[in-house]
Amino acid sequence: MAGPSAAPSPPLLRLSLPALGLLLQLLTILLFATFVCYGRHTSAKLWHQEELRLPNGSSSPPLQNHFDLRYPSFQDVHTMIFVGFGFLMTFLKRYGFGSVAFNFLIAAFAIQWSVLIQGFLHSFHNGKIHVGIESMISADFCAGAVLISFGAVLGKTSPVQLLLMAGFEVTLFGINEYILLNLLGAKDAGGSMTIHTFGAYFGLMVSRMLYRPHLDRSQQREGSTYHSDLFAMIGTLFLWLFWPSFNSAITAHGDDQQRAALNTYFSLAASTLATFATSALLNEGGKLDMVHIQNAALAGGVIVGTSAEMMLTPFGALIAGVLAGLVSTLGFQFLTPLLASRLKIQDTCGVHNLHGMPGVLGALLGALVAVLATPEIYGEGMADVFPLVAAGRRTVAFQGLFQLMGLLVSLGMAVVGGCLVGAILKMRSLGAPLDRQCFEDQIYWEVPEDHHEGLQCLEAVSTQEPDRDATSA
Amino acid sequence: MAGPSAAPSPPLLRLSLPALGLLLQLLTILLFATFVCYGRHTSAKLWHQEELRLPNGSSSPPLQNHFDLRYPSFQDVHTMIFVGFGFLMTFLKRYGFGSVAFNFLIAAFAIQWSVLIQGFLHSFHNGKIHVGIESMISADFCAGAVLISFGAVLGKTSPVQLLLMAGFEVTLFGINEYILLNLLGAKDAGGSMTIHTFGAYFGLMVSRMLYRPHLDRSQQREGSTYHSDLFAMIGTLFLWLFWPSFNSAITAHGDDQQRAALNTYFSLAASTLATFATSALLNEGGKLDMVHIQNAALAGGVIVGTSAEMMLTPFGALIAGVLAGLVSTLGFQFLTPLLASRLKIQDTCGVHNLHGMPGVLGALLGALVAVLATPEIYGEGMADVFPLVAAGRRTVAFQGLFQLMGLLVSLGMAVVGGCLVGAILKMRSLGAPLDRQCFEDQIYWEVPEDHHEGLQCLEAVSTQEPDRDATSA
Amino acid sequence: MAGPSAAPSPPLLRLSLPALGLLLQLLTILLFATFVCYGRHTSAKLWHQEELRLPNGSSSPPLQNHFDLRYPSFQDVHTMIFVGFGFLMTFLKRYGFGSVAFNFLIAAFAIQWSVLIQGFLHSFHNGKIHVGIESMISADFCAGAVLISFGAVLGKTSPVQLLLMAGFEVTLFGINEYILLNLLGAKDAGGSMTIHTFGAYFGLMVSRMLYRPHLDRSQQREGSTYHSDLFAMIGTLFLWLFWPSFNSAITAHGDDQQRAALNTYFSLAASTLATFATSALLNEGGKLDMVHIQNAALAGGVIVGTSAEMMLTPFGALIAGVLAGLVSTLGFQFLTPLLASRLKIQDTCGVHNLHGMPGVLGALLGALVAVLATPEIYGEGMADVFPLVAAGRRTVAFQGLFQLMGLLVSLGMAVVGGCLVGAILKMRSLGAPLDRQCFEDQIYWEVPEDHHEGLQCLEAVSTQEPDRDATSA
Repeated sequence: MAGPSAAPSPPLLRLSLPALGLLLQLLTILLFATFVCYGRHTSAKLWHQEELRLPNGSSSPPLQNHFDLRYPSFQDVHTMIFVGFGFLMTFLKRYGFGSVAFNFLIAAFAIQWSVLIQGFLHSFHNGKIHVGIESMISADFCAGAVLISFGAVLGKTSPVQLLLMAGFEVTLFGINEYILLNLLGAKDAGGSMTIHTFGAYFGLMVSRMLYRPHLDRSQQREGSTYHSDLFAMIGTLFLWLFWPSFNSAITAHGDDQQRAALNTYFSLAASTLATFATSALLNEGGKLDMVHIQNAALAGGVIVGTSAEMMLTPFGALIAGVLAGLVSTLGFQFLTPLLASRLKIQDTCGVHNLHGMPGVLGALLGALVAVLATPEIYGEGMADVFPLVAAGRRTVAFQGLFQLMGLLVSLGMAVVGGCLVGAILKMRSLGAPLDRQCFEDQIYWEVPEDHHEGLQCLEAVSTQEPDRDATSA
Repeated sequence: MAGPSAAPSPPLLRLSLPALGLLLQLLTILLFATFVCYGRHTSAKLWHQEELRLPNGSSSPPLQNHFDLRYPSFQDVHTMIFVGFGFLMTFLKRYGFGSVAFNFLIAAFAIQWSVLIQGFLHSFHNGKIHVGIESMISADFCAGAVLISFGAVLGKTSPVQLLLMAGFEVTLFGINEYILLNLLGAKDAGGSMTIHTFGAYFGLMVSRMLYRPHLDRSQQREGSTYHSDLFAMIGTLFLWLFWPSFNSAITAHGDDQQRAALNTYFSLAASTLATFATSALLNEGGKLDMVHIQNAALAGGVIVGTSAEMMLTPFGALIAGVLAGLVSTLGFQFLTPLLASRLKIQDTCGVHNLHGMPGVLGALLGALVAVLATPEIYGEGMADVFPLVAAGRRTVAFQGLFQLMGLLVSLGMAVVGGCLVGAILKMRSLGAPLDRQCFEDQIYWEVPEDHHEGLQCLEAVSTQEPDRDATSA
Repeated sequence: MAGPSAAPSPPLLRLSLPALGLLLQLLTILLFATFVCYGRHTSAKLWHQEELRLPNGSSSPPLQNHFDLRYPSFQDVHTMIFVGFGFLMTFLKRYGFGSVAFNFLIAAFAIQWSVLIQGFLHSFHNGKIHVGIESMISADFCAGAVLISFGAVLGKTSPVQLLLMAGFEVTLFGINEYILLNLLGAKDAGGSMTIHTFGAYFGLMVSRMLYRPHLDRSQQREGSTYHSDLFAMIGTLFLWLFWPSFNSAITAHGDDQQRAALNTYFSLAASTLATFATSALLNEGGKLDMVHIQNAALAGGVIVGTSAEMMLTPFGALIAGVLAGLVSTLGFQFLTPLLASRLKIQDTCGVHNLHGMPGVLGALLGALVAVLATPEIYGEGMADVFPLVAAGRRTVAFQGLFQLMGLLVSLGMAVVGGCLVGAILKMRSLGAPLDRQCFEDQIYWEVPEDHHEGLQCLEAVSTQEPDRDATSA
C-alpha cells in the first residue's frame, strides 16, 4: 500500500488553487462592478419604462418579459451543464469526485467569465454590458464547450490547470462565436461548430500538448466499476433528455423553436437505436458496451446542432441520428486507441467521438440543408432561419459556403488555441499529477476510508486468481 | 465460479440485435419519409401563414405557438420516461445496466414508432402525418405503457424480445386509445386506463406466457443491494415529482391543467403517507421496506389518472391517494407472491401493484366523478372536461357508463394482446436468457471487473457464516 | 457481530408510525373536506366566469392562468425539495435509506399540512381556503424549512419524532411568515429569514434539546463512503441548479423574476469558487473536502434569499456569494465541532453553516439593499419590490428597520419554538434510537444483505491493518 495514498500532493496545491481561484473571482468582481448592469428586461426601472412606452389602450400585444419565454429552456440547459456533463464523467472508478466536482468548479467560473467576454462582444452598449436571461443561456453554452475540452483531459490535470484552461478557452470561444455568427452570418443554434467542434478539438490539442507517454502506469484506474457506470448513466440521460432544449434555447420563438426541439428529439431517438445495434455488432460475443451507450447515443443531439432549426424534415433528422450513432460508436471502438498510439492524443472521455466527428458532420449537414433552402419550403419563415437570404443579401449557395467557412474557422481556432493553451498548461508550477497519480481522486481530495479498502479487497481477490486479465500495477 | 461468467451468450445475439434494431430503424425512416411532415405550428411556412391570417390591427389575442404552452410539461414527462422508469428498475443488484439501458433502448424505439401509429390514427391529413409538440407528448405517453410492461418481464427477456414487444404494444396501444378517446368519448387525460391498466395487464400476460417454472435458480440475483436501492430512489422521486405534469400534460389549458396538477400533487402526498404507514404495519418488527416506498408511494399518481382534470375536490384527491398507497402496499406484500405461485405470473417490478390495481381503481374513480358532474359544479367549464355532456349529446350517467366501457376495452385489449404477443416472444431464436441467467447483466453486457469480484467477496463472507439466511446457489 | 443487527427495534414502532401517520392523514382529510376548495384559477366554474367577465372585443390582454406563469418555477422548487434535500443527506454511509426516504415522508406530510396552515392565514375567504398553484409553491417552501431542521437532527430521530416535528414546525413557520410578510411588511422572496434562518435555528434548538452525550458510540457510522458522497452530489447539484427558480418563484412577474434568478445565478457561481478556494486553503495538504463542496457551494443561494429580487447589482451578487462560500466553509471546519462540544448542539448536516449563518447574512444584506433603494434606481418598478415605500407609507430606512425586525422575529420564533418542540420530542414513547443505533438504517429499515456483509468485509480488512485510523467501536 505504498501506492497512491503515500504519494505526496502536488507542490503548493494548498496555495495555488486558493490563490488562482480567489484572484480570478476578484478580477471578475472588479470587471462586473465596472461594466455589468441589468438589461432592459431585468432592471426595475428600464422594464417599467418599456411597459409605459406602449400606447394606452392600443391593440398591440402585451409586452412579454424574456424571462417567461426563455427561462424553462435555460433551466434544462443548466441541468445539462452541471448534472449532465458532471455525472457523465463519473464513469471512472476512482475519479468520481474529480469528475463531478471539477466540472462544477470550472463551469461555475466559466459562466462568470463568459458573461464578461460575450457581453463585450454582443451586448456592450454605452460602456456597459447589459445582462439578463440571454446572458445566462449564452454563458451556459460557453461552459459546455469548456466541459467538452475537460472531457479530453479528465483525470490528467490539476484544478489549477483546469481553471486556467477555462479562462483562455472562454475567451477564444467568444471570439470564435463572434466571427461565425456576426461576421460570417453563419447559423449555429445548437452549436455543432461553436460548441462541439470547437470544444472537442480544442481539448484534444490541449491533451496532445500534455501527452503522457507513460500513462499506462495508472491504467488500472482508467476503468469503471459497476456503480460508477450507473452514475454515468445519470449524466447521459439528463443530457439526452434536455438536448432538444439545448438546440432550441436561442432560436427564434414559434415554429423555429418547436422545430429545433422536434428534430433533435427524432435524431436522438435514432442515434440511440443505431448505437445499441452497432455496439452489439462490434463485440465478439454480441455483448453491449456501456461506454457506447453512455456516449454515442448522445451524438444524435450533436449532429443536428446546426440544422435543427432548419427545415431538416423529420426523416432527415432520423437519418442524421443513425449516422451519428454509427460513426460515434465506431470511433470509440477503433479511433480512440489509434489517436492515442499514433497521434499521441489521449482522449479520456472520447470527446472526439461524441463531439468532434458528430460536430463536424453537423456543420456539413447544416451547410447542406442551407443550400437546399427554397422560398417554397420556408415561406415567410425564411427571415427567421436565414435572415440574410430572406433580405436578398445572400443566395442559399453562399449561405452554405459561409456555413463551411464557419466550420473551418472553428477548427482553426480550436487547433491553434488548443496548442497555445496546452503549451501554457505545461508549466511545472501548475500542479499536474504524476503519471501514476492520474485518474486518482486521492491526489486532490480527502476520500473516505472505503475508497482505499475497497480497492484492497478487490486486489486481494485478484491476487488469488492470477489467470484474470486484471492489470497489476 | 463456473456460474454466470462461463455461461455462453444466447446464440446469435451479435447478429439478431443489430439486425432487428437496424431493420426497425430503416422501416421507421422509410415510413417517416413517406408520411411524416411538420405540422402548422412546426413548419416555417405554415406557421407564418397562420400569423398572417390574423386580421391586421384586430383585438384578437396574439397567436401562441403550442410549443410555449406544452413544452415544459413535455420535458417533465420526458424525464419520467427515461430517468424515472429507467432508474426505478435499477433496484436489482446485478441488472442495473439492463434496467436503465434497455429502458432507454425500447423507449427510444417506441417513441418513433408511436409517432407513426398515433399519427395515422389522430393527425393524418391528406396523406400526411403532421407532427409537433403534441406528437412528442403522445409518443412519450405511449412509451410509458411499454415501459410498464417491461417492468413485468424485467430481467427475463432479451433486448430482441423487448424490441419486438415494443413494436406490437405501441400498435395495440394506439388502437386501444383511439377506441377509448375517439369512439367511446371516454376521458383519460393521465392514462389510468390507456397507459396504466393497459400497460400493466399487457405486461402481466406476456410474463404469463413466458412463465419460467424454475426461475428460483437465479433467485439470489432477484434482490437489491444497498446502493441499488438508492439508485432506484432516483427513479421513484423523478416519477413522483413530475407526475402532476404527466396528468396535466394534454388537458385543456387554464383551470383544467392547474386542477389536474393540483389533484395529482395532493393524491401523491397522501399515498406517500399511507405507504409508509402500511409498510411499517405489515412488518413484524415495524421496519419499513424500500420496495414499498419506491413503488407504492407512486400509486397516488396512477389512481387520479382519469379524474385529475375533473372536479375531484382536494379532499377527494387525498382519499384517492390514501386508498392507492394502501392497496398498492398490500399488493406487494401479499398479492405478488400469489400471482407467481397460483397464476404463474412472475411480475418482477410488481407492476400489478403500482399500475394494474391503481389503474383499475382510477378508471372506476373517473367513472364515479363523471356521474357526479353537474352544471352547478362545472359552469361553463363543462365544455372542456365533458364536451359531449356540455353539448347535450350525452348525460353524465352515460358518460360514466362509457368510462366503464373504456376500462373493459382496455382490459380486454391488454389481456388478449399480451397473450398473443407473449406467444410470439416464445420463439427460440429471440435469445431469451436461461433460467439461471435471469437478472444477470453479464449475459448482455460487458461488465466491469468488480461486478464478478464484488460477488465473490460477498460470497466468501457468506460461506464463513452458514447460519445466515443467504441463499446458496 | 452482536452489533446493530441484533439490536431490537424501538418499542412499538410497528404501531406508532402507522398510528401517527394515518391519524395525521385522517385529520388532514377532514380539514380539507371542511375548508379547502379550488380557487378561481383552478375551479372549472370560477375560471370560466373570470373569462366571461372580460368585455367582448376589448383590447385588454387575454386572461392568463396562473398555472402558465408559475408552474415551471414550481417544478424546479419541487425537485429541490424531494431530490435536492433528499439526496444531499445521503452522504451518510449507513443512513441513505433514512435520509432520502424520511425526507420524502416528512415533506409529503408537510406540504399537506402547510396548505391548511398557510391557507388559513393567507387565502381564507368566506370560510374556505382557496387552493391553486400558489398553494403548491408555498407548501413546498414551507417543507423546505422543515427539511433544513431535519438536517440538524438527521440520523438521531425516529420517523415518529420527525412527523411530529414537521407538524409543529409547519404551524410555527406559517405564523412566523405571516408576521414577517403581512404584519411587518418585510420582503423575503427567497426566504433567507422565513425559510433558512427559521429552519436552521429551529432545527439546531431541537437538536440541542435532544443532546446525546454519548453519540460517539455510533461515530464510525457518521461518515461517508465514496459512493455515498456521489449520491450526495446529486442533491447538491439539483439544489444549486434550481435555486434561481426558488428565489424567483413567488416574486412579481417581469423584471423582478428575471432579476431574482440572475442574481442568484451569479451569487451561486461565486460561492462555488470561494468554497473550492477556502476548502483547499484549510486542508494541510491542500486537498479538497467533499463536505464543503456539497454544502458551502450552495450558500450563495441562501445569502441572496431576501435581496435577489432587489436591485442588488450583478457585482453585489458576486460579492455576496463569495462571502457566503467563505463563511460557510469556515463554519464547517471550525464551528460545527465547537457547537457540539461547547453548546451541545450536534448538527449532523451542518445546517448552521449552510442555512443558519448565510440566512442571517442574507437578512442583513436584504435590509442594507432596502435602505439603499432610491426612485432613481427603481423607477416605476418600486411598487413591485417595495410597495409600501412606493405608496409613500414608509421610508426606505424604515423598510430596512422592518427587515431587521423580521430577522429578530424569525430568530426568536425559531429558538423558542425549537426548544418547545425539542422538549416534546424527548418523550420516551416516540421511538428515538439508542446512541449506538444512530446513523444506522437497520433500525427502521429492511436492508439488503450486502449492507451487513459489506461492513464486515471492510472490518475484516481493517482488522488486518491495526495502524489505520479507523475508529473501533
